[in-house]
Amino acid sequence: MFIIHANMLIKPEKVDEFLKEIDTLVAASQAEEGNITYVLKRDVKQDNLFTMVEEWKDAEAMQLHNATPHFQKFVQDMQQFAAAPLDAKVFEGTEIKRG
Amino acid sequence: MFIIHANMLIKPEKVDEFLKEIDTLVAASQAEEGNITYVLKRDVKQDNLFTMVEEWKDAEAMQLHNATPHFQKFVQDMQQFAAAPLDAKVFEGTEIKRG
Repeated sequence: MFIIHANMLIKPEKVDEFLKEIDTLVAASQAEEGNITYVLKRDVKQDNLFTMVEEWKDAEAMQLHNATPHFQKFVQDMQQFAAAPLDAKVFEGTEIKRG
Repeated sequence: MFIIHANMLIKPEKVDEFLKEIDTLVAASQAEEGNITYVLKRDVKQDNLFTMVEEWKDAEAMQLHNATPHFQKFVQDMQQFAAAPLDAKVFEGTEIKRG
């Protein structure tokens, strides 16, 4: 599986609009067959720093996601929202189920 | 390496106190030799749902962390803060460095 931490620094004046737009992306991404988790978090110290915490079943699921209309639209939208380039960390791994 | 998503649902009336207390834990954990990332995020839809996004070099680093006074104190404190049991996902993996 794959885990992604996609950190997004948003222009302060665009945060409300960003939060409205991203709802569509989150709902559509969660509905994708290969998705496990897709949730948006906000940094507790920096109000305009957000992280999408994602889990995907495999590489194919991630690639399919990147090609979806809802993701492509969001990439476009981010050009007006972003205060810095997307800072994403991608990990390949396995979940450790505990007792 | 290990990635942890530690989800914590906090009693609404305890959120401010929780945020004060957790600063100590975050600073001390980030200073640990085996830590890569230790940051607190808040859910954008649920104000009392928090996630500690963690990255650790190896299993030993995680075990050392769990035995530290600052983590043990926090485990104690959580008994009064938590509105639900800790919901942590642990992954073993490798970061995929991209071009």
